[in-house]
Amino acid sequence: MNAVQPPLQQSFSVPFTYAVHFTRHLFAPENPLFRDYLGQPSPTGQAKKLLFVIDSGVLAHHPTLPDAIAQYVAGIPSAILAADPILVPGGEAAKNDPALVDRLIDAVDQYGIDRHSYIVAIGGGAVLDLVGYAAAIAHRGVRHIRIPTTVLSQNDSGVGVKNGVNYRGKKNFIGTFAPPAAVINDAHFLTTLDERDWRAGIAEAVKVALIKDLAFFEWIEAHAEALAHRDTEAMTELIYRCARMHMQHISSGDPFELGSARPLDFGHWAAHKLEYLTNFSVRHGEAVAIGIALDTVYSQLAGRILAHDADRVLHVFQQLGFDLFHPALAENESENLRRGLTEFQEHLGGQLTITLLDALGQGIEVHDMDFGLIQQAVGRLSSVYSVPFSVG
Amino acid sequence: MNAVQPPLQQSFSVPFTYAVHFTRHLFAPENPLFRDYLGQPSPTGQAKKLLFVIDSGVLAHHPTLPDAIAQYVAGIPSAILAADPILVPGGEAAKNDPALVDRLIDAVDQYGIDRHSYIVAIGGGAVLDLVGYAAAIAHRGVRHIRIPTTVLSQNDSGVGVKNGVNYRGKKNFIGTFAPPAAVINDAHFLTTLDERDWRAGIAEAVKVALIKDLAFFEWIEAHAEALAHRDTEAMTELIYRCARMHMQHISSGDPFELGSARPLDFGHWAAHKLEYLTNFSVRHGEAVAIGIALDTVYSQLAGRILAHDADRVLHVFQQLGFDLFHPALAENESENLRRGLTEFQEHLGGQLTITLLDALGQGIEVHDMDFGLIQQAVGRLSSVYSVPFSVG
Repeated sequence: MNAVQPPLQQSFSVPFTYAVHFTRHLFAPENPLFRDYLGQPSPTGQAKKLLFVIDSGVLAHHPTLPDAIAQYVAGIPSAILAADPILVPGGEAAKNDPALVDRLIDAVDQYGIDRHSYIVAIGGGAVLDLVGYAAAIAHRGVRHIRIPTTVLSQNDSGVGVKNGVNYRGKKNFIGTFAPPAAVINDAHFLTTLDERDWRAGIAEAVKVALIKDLAFFEWIEAHAEALAHRDTEAMTELIYRCARMHMQHISSGDPFELGSARPLDFGHWAAHKLEYLTNFSVRHGEAVAIGIALDTVYSQLAGRILAHDADRVLHVFQQLGFDLFHPALAENESENLRRGLTEFQEHLGGQLTITLLDALGQGIEVHDMDFGLIQQAVGRLSSVYSVPFSVG
Repeated sequence: MNAVQPPLQQSFSVPFTYAVHFTRHLFAPENPLFRDYLGQPSPTGQAKKLLFVIDSGVLAHHPTLPDAIAQYVAGIPSAILAADPILVPGGEAAKNDPALVDRLIDAVDQYGIDRHSYIVAIGGGAVLDLVGYAAAIAHRGVRHIRIPTTVLSQNDSGVGVKNGVNYRGKKNFIGTFAPPAAVINDAHFLTTLDERDWRAGIAEAVKVALIKDLAFFEWIEAHAEALAHRDTEAMTELIYRCARMHMQHISSGDPFELGSARPLDFGHWAAHKLEYLTNFSVRHGEAVAIGIALDTVYSQLAGRILAHDADRVLHVFQQLGFDLFHPALAENESENLRRGLTEFQEHLGGQLTITLLDALGQGIEVHDMDFGLIQQAVGRLSSVYSVPFSVG
């Protein structure tokens, strides 16, 4: 054996930047935002190819959208449409069908989409997750613009760096971390959301407020009635503050989650399980509200927060119109919820890490949950909230 | 329309570090390297799960490898094998079968591999590309250790940050940029390479020398006979120097290739086309040697380098035993080579960017190729090198 060579150490940082823009009626001819974003001609004068992918649920409410896009893009000298928009189903179905990933990859091939082109996704969080994933793996990453259309995607998932699809029923089992080229939140899309989608996205705002920002929680308390009655001003403010906190969390922490902690997953271990147990008939935000309620009551039972503070959390969710209990939470409770904890740990890997509340506006990570207390917390929610709540 | 909110700017850098280790007989009981690498018990005392994936071509030459691994890992208190090693075919076949990606993803699910586990790939560059891709998308990225077994993967592809598979015959059409957790080059694997694989990997070393480091090119000239006669000392030195240059290039430049330039693709536009035209019967390194010869002669015909310098390049390839012409290069020449240039541009996206030589040890990027000169260069190689060369 000859002399062994010393190891070669590799070390580098990859910088990422993107902006989240806020507008209304993005593809109205007089709106300069998208034109300005793309407007710089490339150094070679080549037109930038755009491939749009649209959530069919969005199209149903905005049937003139493809025409508006075609007319708008025709007015951008430096850009061309690569093809007619591709339609994909909205909601979790978008992430459950592997053929949709192939269809998008095929489109990248067929229309000659390269790493200087843009794939533009318009839709809810699930569609953005699907399209972001396909864009991330095609040519090792095609530029991707997200136009989120729901509260949840505008204030949370759509402004972050994750994508993914489900695999054999396992949520987000495959995906990547891939920052978008840009995000554009168009408040007009919020006006056509159904009642459940309008409400569901608010849960993530309550979540970040509870673990990071008491003042924001108090703002939500003060505006809960307005939000419940579809006040657009209040909603755009909520989205802006929530998106900003979500983005600050990403940039100040561990954007690609190379470590273990996931503080933004407050309330999510039970939520994931509940979505699965109800075959996704409970929407993500609805499940998150129940998961937060559960872990809030647990935090109280564990002596971390006062009963009064826990009640404030439950009350604001009630004012917003959320149900705080679902029968599936109590079915085979010890089996289902125990497995929920285990699966949550497996998905993140390593040690179990759960976020609880140490105060309103202050999350804390723990590595152990007392199953007796979990059952007590479920019992409390069951006894108080088992009659579905409706806004008065 | 109410007041529009200002854009939120996101900006962060993601740091990546990994080491490339050099050793022999990695899984010999007395070799501490792998044990030391994994040896720190996790904070929770949980054993780290290891899932090995082995190139079946490597297994054929090293049939006791799985047993050696099992015994070796049994001696690491902090690690356990998740399962028996998974075998995958070597060579381009590994990247052409989508079922292999699914098989690896299924294994991640079946064996509970999480983001704190390690998927360890042992094989040539194609197997490393396949396994690295599956590891990168499972759970949005499982830790991945590469143990490259060929000259090409030890000095070039295996020490970098790319992975990928082919899609409907398009090379590397899907993949990601995902730095490995570690790379371990075991020189013992080189001893069982067949003649062609031993030689082919040297082409990438000649490439980096030609575009970046005259002294290294002169070193290769001085050691060409030794390398051709399978001198392991010379080969490990060549691999070390080439790997170091490749890694420096990545860390000093644009690791995830967010821009357009790809200087390390010197000689590759024709090489990719030649591999495809010969249905990959010409190995990547063999094709790269021909591609370098072509672009070297082109550089001379374009007046960038002296005839004497071009001859030095062709001569060192001859000494190493490379063929510098393949009949497929001249078949439908104008059609095939023109398409090769176009496809190369499409894969990178944006403007055509080709690296030529301005001197030995100094590459230069150009954005235009004269097709008449390309045909002259092919003609020169055809007339001089159309009789396959064999080492004397």
